[in-house]
Amino acid sequence: MTRLVLVPIANGTEEIEAITIIDVLRRAECEVTVASCHEHTLVTGSRNIQINTDTVITECTEQNWDLIALPGGVTGAENLRESSHLTEILKAQKREHRWIAAICAAPAVVLSHHNLINNAKATCYPTFLSAIPRPEEDPKKTVVYDESEKIITSQGPGTAFEFALELVSLLKGEGTATALAKTMQAHWWPGKR
Amino acid sequence: MTRLVLVPIANGTEEIEAITIIDVLRRAECEVTVASCHEHTLVTGSRNIQINTDTVITECTEQNWDLIALPGGVTGAENLRESSHLTEILKAQKREHRWIAAICAAPAVVLSHHNLINNAKATCYPTFLSAIPRPEEDPKKTVVYDESEKIITSQGPGTAFEFALELVSLLKGEGTATALAKTMQAHWWPGKR
Repeated sequence: MTRLVLVPIANGTEEIEAITIIDVLRRAECEVTVASCHEHTLVTGSRNIQINTDTVITECTEQNWDLIALPGGVTGAENLRESSHLTEILKAQKREHRWIAAICAAPAVVLSHHNLINNAKATCYPTFLSAIPRPEEDPKKTVVYDESEKIITSQGPGTAFEFALELVSLLKGEGTATALAKTMQAHWWPGKR
Repeated sequence: MTRLVLVPIANGTEEIEAITIIDVLRRAECEVTVASCHEHTLVTGSRNIQINTDTVITECTEQNWDLIALPGGVTGAENLRESSHLTEILKAQKREHRWIAAICAAPAVVLSHHNLINNAKATCYPTFLSAIPRPEEDPKKTVVYDESEKIITSQGPGTAFEFALELVSLLKGEGTATALAKTMQAHWWPGKR
């Protein structure tokens, strides 16, 4: 089953978070589109790594995405928040009850800001937790699902790998995620959901 | 203390491994140069992510690198191996007894091939272990140091984060690595060395 995933990035995006999500989901044979939220495809991340994206966000408004996954980095998340095209895509995703994932600063800076998180139980980078309506208080819960709101969130670069594997579990099943973790030499097991 | 780090990449490089090393070392305020082993700076990784590097390898022959860190990905490692400029830089690094780090396919495909690993105890991606002269047999040892040969190795994408933190520990001290792990929301502790 083809699964379409959109990963929007911008100048200031945290590179580990973006790349880990893209890489792991592509290994799981999801069709991942990496879109710049600027007018140009070349994006400079938070640690000065330049990534040339597949496309720009204005080209991504017509598809039905199974998942939209937002990486963090404070400046990057602010740039995602300011993109009117991305905001419209996210609102449509929410309206049509499809999954949105966000990590680090993104749950607060993007989703809370645009009232897309509603009453979802969620986590994020610790300093942003106060901007989440219903924050997960257990720091050991590094990936938090809210099935009814279709929101999945995580904490930061150090949790990006397990976050990406949980996204695989969601889209392709736990067996695929477990097998993939093994081939990547990751010490991971499903069941946080 | 300024620490100069070279991260050579090529078409087919495993993106999580490359980006995690670069990002984490830059957070630790190492001066990291990302160099393409092709004639062009734009490199396409193993999962089709395009990275625009800082420079090309032919511009990196004059510096004294405190550390050269090689990411894996089979095709990427083969391309690193075929670069005569990188090979000369690695031979000089070895001759001058400075650190070389390699992960996944790179310890076998690059270092063993060019006889740079000597008798170092080392690990790599499991299917390549037979190409390592003195392989680490305990799979739980995800990062392996050989102090006398100045070689540090690791297994694959799932161990890239702890590998990068161990490189920080080596160059900037355990305290810096521990503090950095915390700010990145990583569950990591030093002492594998």
